[in-house]
This record gives sequence, structure tokens and C-alpha cells, in this order.
Amino acid sequence: MGLEHVLNARSVAVIGASKVPTKRGYQTIRTLLDEHYEGSIYPVNPKEKSILGLTCYPSVSQIPGEVDVALVATPARTVPSILEDCGKKGVKGAVILATGFGETGARGKALENDVLDVAGQHHIRLIGPNTSGMINLKDNLNLVGLKDSPKGDIALLTQSGNMALTLITEAKLKSRKGFTYYVGVGNEADIRFHEYLEFFSQDPDTKAILMYVEGMREGRKFLQQAYRTTEKKPIVLLKSGRSATGKKSAGSHTGALAGMSRVAKGAFERAGIVVIENSDELFPAAEALSSLPPIKNNSIAILADGGGHATIAADTLTDLGVHIPELQEKTKAKLRAILPDGAAVRNPIDVAGGTDDNPRIFAECANLVLNDVNVGGLLIVGLFGGYGIRFAESLALMEEDAAHQMGKMITSKKKAIVVHSLYNSEKPHSLDLLRYYGVPVYGSLDVACKSIGVLAQYGRYLKSYHAVSSFVFDWGAKAKPEASKIFDRVYADGRTALLEAEAKKLLGLHGAKVTRDRIVTTAEAAAQAAAEMGGKVALKIASPDILHKSDANGVMLNLSGKERVRKAFRQIVKNAKAYKPDATIEGVLVSPMVEKGAEVIIGTKIDDQFGPVIMYGLGGVLVEILKDVSFRVLPITRRSAQMMIKDTKSYPILDGVRGDKPYDKKALVNLLLTCSDIIEAYPQIQEMDLNPVIVHHQGLSIVDARILLKPFDDAGKADADA
Amino acid sequence: MGLEHVLNARSVAVIGASKVPTKRGYQTIRTLLDEHYEGSIYPVNPKEKSILGLTCYPSVSQIPGEVDVALVATPARTVPSILEDCGKKGVKGAVILATGFGETGARGKALENDVLDVAGQHHIRLIGPNTSGMINLKDNLNLVGLKDSPKGDIALLTQSGNMALTLITEAKLKSRKGFTYYVGVGNEADIRFHEYLEFFSQDPDTKAILMYVEGMREGRKFLQQAYRTTEKKPIVLLKSGRSATGKKSAGSHTGALAGMSRVAKGAFERAGIVVIENSDELFPAAEALSSLPPIKNNSIAILADGGGHATIAADTLTDLGVHIPELQEKTKAKLRAILPDGAAVRNPIDVAGGTDDNPRIFAECANLVLNDVNVGGLLIVGLFGGYGIRFAESLALMEEDAAHQMGKMITSKKKAIVVHSLYNSEKPHSLDLLRYYGVPVYGSLDVACKSIGVLAQYGRYLKSYHAVSSFVFDWGAKAKPEASKIFDRVYADGRTALLEAEAKKLLGLHGAKVTRDRIVTTAEAAAQAAAEMGGKVALKIASPDILHKSDANGVMLNLSGKERVRKAFRQIVKNAKAYKPDATIEGVLVSPMVEKGAEVIIGTKIDDQFGPVIMYGLGGVLVEILKDVSFRVLPITRRSAQMMIKDTKSYPILDGVRGDKPYDKKALVNLLLTCSDIIEAYPQIQEMDLNPVIVHHQGLSIVDARILLKPFDDAGKADADA
Repeated sequence: MGLEHVLNARSVAVIGASKVPTKRGYQTIRTLLDEHYEGSIYPVNPKEKSILGLTCYPSVSQIPGEVDVALVATPARTVPSILEDCGKKGVKGAVILATGFGETGARGKALENDVLDVAGQHHIRLIGPNTSGMINLKDNLNLVGLKDSPKGDIALLTQSGNMALTLITEAKLKSRKGFTYYVGVGNEADIRFHEYLEFFSQDPDTKAILMYVEGMREGRKFLQQAYRTTEKKPIVLLKSGRSATGKKSAGSHTGALAGMSRVAKGAFERAGIVVIENSDELFPAAEALSSLPPIKNNSIAILADGGGHATIAADTLTDLGVHIPELQEKTKAKLRAILPDGAAVRNPIDVAGGTDDNPRIFAECANLVLNDVNVGGLLIVGLFGGYGIRFAESLALMEEDAAHQMGKMITSKKKAIVVHSLYNSEKPHSLDLLRYYGVPVYGSLDVACKSIGVLAQYGRYLKSYHAVSSFVFDWGAKAKPEASKIFDRVYADGRTALLEAEAKKLLGLHGAKVTRDRIVTTAEAAAQAAAEMGGKVALKIASPDILHKSDANGVMLNLSGKERVRKAFRQIVKNAKAYKPDATIEGVLVSPMVEKGAEVIIGTKIDDQFGPVIMYGLGGVLVEILKDVSFRVLPITRRSAQMMIKDTKSYPILDGVRGDKPYDKKALVNLLLTCSDIIEAYPQIQEMDLNPVIVHHQGLSIVDARILLKPFDDAGKADADA
Repeated sequence: MGLEHVLNARSVAVIGASKVPTKRGYQTIRTLLDEHYEGSIYPVNPKEKSILGLTCYPSVSQIPGEVDVALVATPARTVPSILEDCGKKGVKGAVILATGFGETGARGKALENDVLDVAGQHHIRLIGPNTSGMINLKDNLNLVGLKDSPKGDIALLTQSGNMALTLITEAKLKSRKGFTYYVGVGNEADIRFHEYLEFFSQDPDTKAILMYVEGMREGRKFLQQAYRTTEKKPIVLLKSGRSATGKKSAGSHTGALAGMSRVAKGAFERAGIVVIENSDELFPAAEALSSLPPIKNNSIAILADGGGHATIAADTLTDLGVHIPELQEKTKAKLRAILPDGAAVRNPIDVAGGTDDNPRIFAECANLVLNDVNVGGLLIVGLFGGYGIRFAESLALMEEDAAHQMGKMITSKKKAIVVHSLYNSEKPHSLDLLRYYGVPVYGSLDVACKSIGVLAQYGRYLKSYHAVSSFVFDWGAKAKPEASKIFDRVYADGRTALLEAEAKKLLGLHGAKVTRDRIVTTAEAAAQAAAEMGGKVALKIASPDILHKSDANGVMLNLSGKERVRKAFRQIVKNAKAYKPDATIEGVLVSPMVEKGAEVIIGTKIDDQFGPVIMYGLGGVLVEILKDVSFRVLPITRRSAQMMIKDTKSYPILDGVRGDKPYDKKALVNLLLTCSDIIEAYPQIQEMDLNPVIVHHQGLSIVDARILLKPFDDAGKADADA
């Protein structure tokens, strides 16, 4: 069921209503009344007749009218029976404030499951438990009791009550912005992040979604929904719990698993989410993205009235991946005409005192710069807003005029302006005027840079290959019938690991060029196979009981000559038996030795939060020591595969260094796509590891391949059926 | 001459004094009078009789009394003659505001040199030109005309007038802190950064030094002075101009060269300077370092009244390299006794509502936590300061009590406390009280983390190997007499590049184990040398005219057998002649082939700003593609050499990966020290490049060595005679 009746409820029962002003059951009713909620309010408390002038009911089921949502402000142990009663009444949703559920351990988890069972039977959707509550600011449906929260066009979704308080307070004190909804997701026991997101993405009043996340229960569904949402409106997200200590702290806080930072960041950005690392930048990012158009060409001009700020802004924007473009000659000429001789009319532009007598010049410069096709947005840094304060009051009026002019440029030119002002804390009227037009103003230079930077980032995403390709699995559609025979045999053997030959066969079924390996069971057959292959060969033990073949001395390389191969066969079998006397030995794998090349590693796994992901890295020491790898959420497109190769720092090696010829990147891209296809085809697969793959100047060789299946009972269940 | 008479001047001439209120020559006099400067003020202007009630003189030389410092507020072209006049009068210092000097190009540079000449003749020390001026706040000697700058214990040294304005404004609006001195260094034409620094390090009222830098003229001298200063008092520095665009902007601003970011950061940190990257954190870092003791054990406790802030703070501090320690069991027990059941008494500590009725509990918790030996400092995050605002006024009084208690803990426990408060912008009295005791308070969580983080960083430095070893060169003391013969021959040949054999000989003189190379001039001698060496050999062309031997096909490897060596000799000589017919060929270098091992690169160079630096990296692709190298300012100690090896990400390779045995790190450290000795011994050397060096499991081989000398005319000049 949708969340319409919960988040836009037209009637509220407050269970645990109270006459004590410090109690939540009083504060909520007080706030609903004070803020003129137009729906029905039903206090519920068996001990009271009326509260704050409203009739009080002994139980929900005794309320005469319809009840959309119940705020449950009573202790954890009372919740199941309360929900039973709500169920009888046909209540559609409940906000459960109490702690003492899944976040506290096994006993709490059992109670949470009881609550879920009751809610499920009666089709009651739950917010929480362990939540600070929910506010619909459009309808004055305030179930948090936090008064005077500012209204606006941002939906706020958090996993921490005091981060919500921080963000709401920041909006109130530092901006003219506000919120459509606030939801504290709490333990995410029933309603999940992606469901709230879907609701907000459809809400016409919400222009951007602001999230604070510690961990998610169904990351893949969230990503899918986010991908669809960011096409229409931006999502800004801060995920904490990066450090070991942070994770510990997050763990106690909501009971959600704080996920692996690098995979998570990559996954969020894949879906077009603007991921923020510093909490100071979280609200400003939402402010900019909800107020201003994204920057289309990743190019920003800087307009300053002093060198220091311009230099720092240029550094910071460059670090954010933004381009500081040259201005057109005609723009420079026009700027030269209105600015004094000492001014820098390139980008960054330094007015060099040219605005001291007349801050209207800022608006003239802004107009010229925003007319330049090279410029996608404008960052103004320095003293604007303070001319009236520092010099003479008459200048304040000119600043106000400039603010009106610049504010209107947002609409007329469809380009963003963000302002940094040293005088922000003095609250001059001109800066408030800018905010009225949707121009964000900050006292912090770093925050101002980030604020306009995210507009460029979102603009880059909207034009990127990511934005045009979804990543929903069509589970099984690409499956090959022959593959099921392999899996059947593996499961029939009671195994979950494929033999190397089986793994390579599966890869071959999907078009990967695998070596002409052969499993042999006699020394003579080994010699025969080697002779047919020609050149040198490798022999490797093939046993379902020996996963790490080298540890068992089960690998011999660079063999040639029939007698040498026969001896190697016997030695390997002997070593294997010595290593594990009861091992089942299928035989020995004979493969041609591969020529030298660039060593790479490809792996896939099912991430706890985001489902199937793929990893790529340039071989050996680079991966093991320098962790120079790239991740993508599966499935991937050809462009994605190309980019994930380019994302590694060691990428130039593939182009050939030190006089080396380039390696076959096309073959590598094809192999990545094959891996993507295989994971999409077979939900049975838990993990795949191609290590090493040798990329040649032409073609590549998969030297070793390991595929692990899910336990038989789980197999076939498509994780998070993406 | 010292800066005493300039920065603590007892009399000031204002040249270019004016009656026009918007002119600097009026504003300065107005401010000096308003702020009750106790020294003598002499307006100078041939057209006026008196200004603001003070007698006005036609020229400096006509002033009756002594003049310590002249503020020159007239255009650039007038400055030389004005300084001539100042010289006649015996003026000790001048502050030159005008732009139009070195920062504008060759003509301005010539004018700057003229000014320097005149000043030198008359022993006048110069601040600027191209400066916003200087303020001595202790004596109300305000030559900037910026009124109401807050007094305090921080010395401010910047290269941008509007960054100074930013920092002064920030101090005034957001802290109870202020300044002893402000100096805008401008073009640094005469007085250099290190001279100001020396002055501030000796000023008893200055507790910390705050710097904004775009580039420096004498970086090495600055580093030496900074090293001596940070032993006593902290230096906080932001260096901008990191990005290409930033550099361009910095270039136009002060005419100083914005230096190479990575070398610069390493060099500053070597001298114990706290380098700040975000401008928002610059003043807060100085605030903390000037008010609070450094944290001795790099361990910080976090006290929160909600999970979200605690999690973010733990993440941020961990990213800053700070340890979040376990609390002692007795501390936990005592916390448990005063906090409710749901509270987290580990670190981070979450009071979980335990302070809602009584914020005095914060002080009780702080007391317990700071008594814990595991804890070096305390960060309080969340709502403190806002209890009185959110809940009831009586709570504000309890917060004030807690603030008094916590403030006194700074002195009694000698441990730092920093506070983040969501209610900072509401300016509650309790937060102002905290500041009164020197406890910094911030509305930004990120800034609060950084503020306490720099106390840990400075504490780490004070205990580090860097702090106990200076890095002043004893130029030439380690020189070997035999070396001068090599240099003499190189210069006599009109060369600056040493031949490989010469470079290796020099290395050998300083104890480096070099291969038993031999230069031969006949094929027969080559064969003979190879036979004596035994094993395989390499032959390389030896010609002062062929620097890149491989390009000339002048290298042949893995040779054995007399006939093969003879043929190779002839081939190499033939190739060299074909490559460069007029090349002087000294012969062919025969070296034993070195066994395999870990390939590393060592290089030294003379950095434009910081003088001799050394670079180390783990070989080949890792250095070329991944730039995995570490830098140090020379000279280095054994510990420094060990750490610079460990600082590379690829370091584990030397310990042996994939079953490899460890490589001889001791030999590598010795070679780094040898390089340091050589650079210290011979100021002639411009650049040294050992590439590759092969480190074996025992010992190492310097396969190729290249040494470049300075041009003959510069040789022997010790750069920045450190």
C-alpha cells in the first residue's frame, strides 16, 4: 500500500496522550492545535476524559470517526496490543516512537518481529520504531512536536533525530528555505527508504530530497528508486559510519548495518545521488539543488573583489572537478569597459576596487559573465552585502538594487548564482533579498564553493552515461540451458564451489575466450593433451576438495616434452594425496601456458546492502597493496565497463608504458560485460573471481576462474529482486 | 636590523596625508587618533597646513621629532624620492601601500629594485609594497585604518588583504579572540616571511601565529625559523594556489610564485607547522592552538547528546588521524552511575537524554572523562547551550554553571575541551562563558572536529622525530677532497652533467656500494673486464654528449662470453657514432649485471622555494603512473629516511609479498642518508637521480646514476644558505 494515507493523513490518534506538558503525548497535540492542523485529532488515554479541550478516548477502536494514522507514544512492550486495537479500527499507519526494539539485540528484535506480524495482518504501515516521528509541513501534520519548523520544498529523510534537528535549525537560521516533509526512518522495520523516496519523488511540492543515512536494509531497491528519482529531482545524501568507531556509534544508534564506504559511495553516485562528506555542506547542497538549475557545462566563473578569496575558490572548485573556463574575448572587452585598469578580466574576475563606490557594478559584471556561453554558473566571493556596512549606508541601497537584478537573472538566464559574503553574519538586507530570489548566500567560502559545485556535479550526472542506462536485472533471461547442468552437478556433489574447468566452461558459454583446457586422468593422457596443444603447458590438480591448488603443490608451470608432462602429472597427484588423503581427485587440468601481458583481476560479489557489484583492478601488487580497483553496481553497460577500467590510477599501463605496445582493452571490456551477463543470468552465483586474467596485445587469457554458488536452499532467490 | 622599530614604532609619518575622508591618508590618521595611539603622528602633505588638528609637514625631512616608521600612501612612481627623503631623516621603516611594482611585470620590477636600492642605502626596512599595511594592536598602532579589530594573542601574517579582513572579522564575530599584530607582507620585497616570524616568535604576548600564504621568496629560511618557532608556539598556515587556475589568480595578486603543493605541504609540516586546507578551519585552528594545551596522546573522547553527531564526529576525527580511545573500566562505571540506562558509556559517550533535566551532568561527565588517563582531550557535540532555549529558562542557568565548571577544567586538568553547539548562532550566555575560559565553541561540527584535531596534530609533532632533529646544512663539512677533482674535470670540459662513472665514483666516496664498473676503450679490454667480473655483464656507452644512452642504442644487457662482449663493444660504439657523429666517446662502461630485486628510485633537487629536497619511490610503473613517492626536505636523519620509505603506499612490497623474502631496507636507508650527505657536502649539485636502484634481499645495486651540477657561475653558492 502507498504511503499517501500515512504521510498525508487526514486524522490522527495520539496514543499515550497526556496532560503533562513535558510529555510527548501532550506536546504533539499542543503543536497540532497551535499550528492549525485541519484534520481530526483524537487523544487516546484510558485515564483521561479530555485533553487540551479535545475528547479523549480509552482506546483507538472506540474513536467514532475514521483514523488514518496513529502516533504511538507508549513503551515498546505495549505496542503489539495497541496495534491489534488499531487493526480493528482500520487504522492505515502508525508512527512508533519507542526504543527497545531491533536496535537493542535479540529480545528487542523478537518484539519488533511481533509488531511487524500484527501490522502485517491488519495492513498497517509503520514508521519506526525508534524514530523521532514525522512531519507533513504542507498540512501542518506535525507528529514530532518541534515547533516553527520552516516550510519549503525540501523533503527530509533521516536516521538520526538530532541530525534532523540540526538540519531544520540550520534551514531556519541560515536560509529562507524549508521542508515539505520530515520523516525519521528509525529502525526501518516496515516502511523502507525506497518507499519514502518514491513518495517524495511523486510529490509535486518537493523539489529536492535531503537524506542522512547510517545504513539501509534494502539498498538495491533504494538505488533503483533513486535512479528513477534523480532523473526528475536531485537527492543529497550524507552517509556516516565510515570509521570503525563511527560504525560502532551508528550501530548503537539505529541497529542498521553501516555499509562499506567505497562500494556505497560508488553505488549512490551511480544512481545520480549527490553524496556529501562534510555535514556542514549537507543542507547548503540541498538548498542549492532545490533552488537553482543544474549547471550544464561543468564550468563556473568566479567574481571577486579581492585576490585571496578568488584564489581559494579556484582551488576548491578545481578540487571538486569543476572547470574554471576562459571567458570569451567579447566578455573580457565589456568587463574591461566597466572595471578599472588594475582589474583582472579573465576568470577568476577581480574587480580590484571597481565596486567600491558602486556595488551595482556586481550586477553588471554578473550580467556580462552569465551571457558568456563558456560560463554555466557564477560564484561571487568577498564583501558583497558589506559595502553598506563598511563604507556608507547609501551603498547598501545600491547593493539591494544589485541583489534584485542578480536575483532575476536566475530566471531570465537559467543559470545559477551562489554568493559568499564575509558580512553574512551581519544579515544585511541585500543578502536576504538574494535568498528571496533563490540565490544561496554563505559566510563560509568552502561551503559556497561546494554549494555551486553540487549544481555542476548534478549537471554532469544528468549528461553522463550513467543517467541514460538503468541497472535493473532481468534475472535469468540470459541464462543458458547448459549452465543448469553444471550447477546441478555442483549441488548434487554437495558443493558450492565450481571446479576451475566448470567455471571456465560457464564463462565460455557466455562468449568468453577461455583456454583449451582439458581434464585428464592418466599421465599418458596428460602427455597426449600437451602434445596436441603444442608449446608449453601448465598442469593443475582438479579436485572439489582442494580449492587452493598452490597450497597443495598442485600446480606445475612451463612444462614441455611428453616425459616431463608425465612426471609432472604423477607428482601433482602424489602431492595432492599427501596434502589431503581423502580428497576426491577428478584428474589434472592441462592448459596451454599463456604468453605474457598485463595482469588484471575481475571479481563480483553480492554486497550486503546494494546487491551484485563488480570489481576490476590491474593485477598483482597494484591490487593487493595499492587497492587500485574500481567498483560498479551490476549490471553494467559497455560504456560503464570502459569507464571502470579508466577509473583505476594504473590505467595508463594498459596503453603501454616504457615502450610497451597497448593491450587489448576491447577484449577486457567484453569480459567485464560477460561477467555482468553471467551474474544477471544466474541468481545462484554468490561470488566470481577471475584472477589472474592476462590481457595480451591481442586478446586475453583467463588463467584462473573461481565461482562460488549460494547454498542450495538460497539459490535461485534473486537478491533484492532488483 | 631587527623589526622592533618598525612593528613597535613610537612615531609615525603619514605620507600622502589627506583631508578627504575616503582617502587612506585621512582614515589612517583618524584611526590612530580614535584608537589613542600614544606615539607621535606626523601628517605629511605639501599642500596642507594641518589635518585633523595635527600639524602637517611638507616633507618627512622637515618633521622636527624622530620618525620610526613612515606610512607611504602615495602612488608607486613617487616612492623612490620619498624614501630618499625618509633616508635623510633617519626613518627606520616604511610601509608601502602602492601597487604597480614587481607584481605587474618587468617595468614594475625595475621600479621595485630602485626602491630597494634607496631603502638599502639608508637602512630603511620595508613592509610591502602592494600591502594593505600593518597593525600593532598592543600599541594601537593601526596603519590599516580598519577600526575595532579585536585584540588578543594571535599574530596574523597574510599575503591577501581580504583574507586578513576575513580573519579579523571572523575573530570579532565568532570568538573572544584577537590579535597582537597584523602584517600584510605584500610583495615581500624587503622584509621576508621568516623575519616577521622571528619577531613574533620572540614576542611574549603572541601565543600563536596565523598565516595565509600564496608563495614565498625564501622558503628555506622560513622553514628554519618555523622549526625553531614551533618548539615554543604553534604556527597555523593556509597556502592557496594549489590548482592551475588558483595559481594564475595568486600570480596576479602578489607576484609571488605559488609553489608545488606536495613538496610545500611536506616541507611546512616538517617544520611543525599546522597546514590547513579549508579556509573555514584556518581561524578556528589558530583559536584552539592559542588557547588550549596540545593533546599529548593523540586520543580524544567524544561526549554527545545524540547518536548522529557522535557518529559524524568519530568519522571526522578518525579521518584526521586521531585515536578515539576506549575508556577505563572505572570511568565507565562512574559514567553509568550518573547516566540513564540507555546511555552509551563507551567512547563516543551518548548521554541519551540524561542531561535533559539537568545539563550540569555535562560537567560531571567531562570531569570523569578528562580524569581518564586514556583521554587527552574532550569534544562535546550536540545541543549544549540550547537546553535553556529549547526547554526551560532554568536550564540555561544550569548550563552556565556547567560552563564555569568545564572552563576551569582546562587549567586544572591541562587538557583541551572543544564544544560544538547547534545553538551557537543563538548566542546563549553559557557558550560565551566557555569562550571566556578559552574553550572554543563552533556551530559547525566539521570545524569543531578540526579545531580539536589540530591540538592532537601539534601534540603529535612535538613528540615526533621531526621535532628533535633540526635540518640546517653544514655546507661542505662532509665534502671529500677527491670529489673536487671530479667537479673540476666536469666544469673544465664545459659540462654540467657527470658521466655515470663519475656519479658512481662520487657515491662511492660517501660509502655507497657501487658496482665494480670499469670504463674500457677497446673491445679486447671489454672482454677482459667482463671475464674478470664473472657472470653476465652490461655494456653502456660513456660519452659526455650522450645523456640518454638507450636512445642512442648505447646499452646492451645480459652479455657473457668474450666474443659476445667484443661484438657488443663494437656495436655500441658504432651505434653511438651513428646517433651523434661528433660525440666525444670516452669509452664503454662494463658493469656486472645485477640480480633481480625491488626497483626503487631516489632523486634530489633544489626546490624553488624550499631548497634541497629528496624524493623516494618504489620503482618503475608505481612511480611513473601512480606517483607513489615521498618527499623530505634535506638533510634527513636515519629516522626520517626510514619514515619516508614507510610513507609510500607500496611500502609492503619491500617486506616481501606473494611469498617473496623481505628486501634490504637497511641498505636503502643508508643510501638515502648517503644522498643527504652528498647534497650537504656539495652545494654545486643541482640534481641527483638514482634510477633505478635495485634493492636485493641483501644489499642493493645502483644501476644508473645521474648527477647534474649548477652552471659554473652559480656553483658553490649554497642555496638559501640554510
